[in-house]
Amino acid sequence: MNSSYVVGIDVGGQTTKLGVVDARGTVLAQTVIRTDTHSDVELYIADLAEAINKVIKDADAEGKIRGIGVGAPNGNYYTGTIENAPNLPWGRTTVEFAKLLSAAMNGIPVALTNDANAAAVGEMTYGAARGMKNFIMITLGTGVGSGIVINGEVVYGHDGFAGELGHTAAVRNNGRACNCGKNGCLEAYASATGVARTAREWLELTDEPSVLRSLDTIASKDVYEAAKEGDKLALKIFEFTGKILGRSFADFIAFSAPEAIVLFGGLARAKEFLTEPILEAMNANVLPLWKNKVELVYSQLKESDAAILGASALGWEL
Amino acid sequence: MNSSYVVGIDVGGQTTKLGVVDARGTVLAQTVIRTDTHSDVELYIADLAEAINKVIKDADAEGKIRGIGVGAPNGNYYTGTIENAPNLPWGRTTVEFAKLLSAAMNGIPVALTNDANAAAVGEMTYGAARGMKNFIMITLGTGVGSGIVINGEVVYGHDGFAGELGHTAAVRNNGRACNCGKNGCLEAYASATGVARTAREWLELTDEPSVLRSLDTIASKDVYEAAKEGDKLALKIFEFTGKILGRSFADFIAFSAPEAIVLFGGLARAKEFLTEPILEAMNANVLPLWKNKVELVYSQLKESDAAILGASALGWEL
Repeated sequence: MNSSYVVGIDVGGQTTKLGVVDARGTVLAQTVIRTDTHSDVELYIADLAEAINKVIKDADAEGKIRGIGVGAPNGNYYTGTIENAPNLPWGRTTVEFAKLLSAAMNGIPVALTNDANAAAVGEMTYGAARGMKNFIMITLGTGVGSGIVINGEVVYGHDGFAGELGHTAAVRNNGRACNCGKNGCLEAYASATGVARTAREWLELTDEPSVLRSLDTIASKDVYEAAKEGDKLALKIFEFTGKILGRSFADFIAFSAPEAIVLFGGLARAKEFLTEPILEAMNANVLPLWKNKVELVYSQLKESDAAILGASALGWEL
Repeated sequence: MNSSYVVGIDVGGQTTKLGVVDARGTVLAQTVIRTDTHSDVELYIADLAEAINKVIKDADAEGKIRGIGVGAPNGNYYTGTIENAPNLPWGRTTVEFAKLLSAAMNGIPVALTNDANAAAVGEMTYGAARGMKNFIMITLGTGVGSGIVINGEVVYGHDGFAGELGHTAAVRNNGRACNCGKNGCLEAYASATGVARTAREWLELTDEPSVLRSLDTIASKDVYEAAKEGDKLALKIFEFTGKILGRSFADFIAFSAPEAIVLFGGLARAKEFLTEPILEAMNANVLPLWKNKVELVYSQLKESDAAILGASALGWEL
């Protein structure tokens, strides 16, 4: 077969990463363009196509691209559209992204899904979920995303938007306000921003000493650094975060009985502090039949390549 | 085709219902045998086979049976076994049910799953979910069961036991003890027994007048009758039950983005009191993209036939 490469594109609010990937998951060439400077989506697509052609040339892959996979916030696999994405510069509209990009790339087929689903396909194709038919990918970044795989297939649901586990209820009463407009969502607690919120809340509510008190602003990275230094409050914050995650995972397990939960994203780097409380809460809240049966694994994709790899994996399905 | 009927068998703790069903979902002949008198599973299978042969004869369907479908508590679709079923008289063991029954029936193929999954297949084949590819069946009986359909297929998960939504957390703190050993499960609140528990709890905790106070024992049916007479406490109990269900349904929607939630079972008869609070809580707790988008529908299978029809529908897949 002469079409033996795929292109992966990860559309983020600030930047768009793209690269050419081979069947083994090696990124042969990659580049980055700005997303946030493009309020006109047509100009963005034109710039993106130019960048794609450049990486294809860099990878010596002209005429050998089997498909282009795109991971994008609010991406709809069924329609190839990006719908109402508040963090993208062209804003709350429906963009026929796959169609526009395919046209700009002389008809190379384009598949599109949201970033967490792309990560799940990437992990299944090249990473920690190779050989798994049933798993749940949880991305712990600025928000909490999810990609659910059942019987080897990503779950898209009736409308293409299945797998919004970051917006299930972690706390039902007096829960924190979430960006989505609801209260108590998992994302409001167990994302990078959630961890920072917990830190700010606990510093305010307790007198507990902590190196975090000396900081003007707190990000989840600061909490992680403090925990590594043995800061007790920071350690408790991760314990709390892990417990919240584990309780929710127990409910996800009751849904699809996965072989594993796969964690990915910036906050997953804190695995030395998260694994134990997650497993403890998860196993305390599942039915006996699943106790100590469901694995917790971490992404095996190289972090710098993961977003491109995840999106590129969709390209093989075209 | 000369094999144009299926047999449906619903294994319950007290009785086993079975019948011969045609492709339109008509039960041509049916009968009932006792389950609870059989502590020896081999004798039970022998009696069951005898009863099956009798209904096949009654339906004039000898030699025309395409398959046998069985719905049973703790039934595992992958292995055809019933595992650790506390309510069945042969108790906490693994029974190779499908294999034993097929052997007793001269090799007619047997498929087996749990009762809620069977109900989902039944509803998809003959009932309210005809034409739906993505829906969640919730059975509101003594317990709360579920059957999840994604892309036209029942979700069995890695081990065959997916879809235990009755044991997801409805209440995270100080939740009621559930039969499964956990606390706060949906089943402890939103089943027939849960409704009766709410009634007993509220009668104890409040002074509110209610016709329920005059009863020695309270079952969900009593609460239903009281609500129909306008009893305010009974009406509030259904409002509470509906709210608990609706909140949980919102989380289920975030998982698989279904077209509809389908309700079935004894408690679903109280739909005139449940529909409104369920929809209100569900739509208040879903992401904006699903608000007022997911239907709530009730089983369309004739109640006396539903268990047999649900199980029989599996027979067509053989």
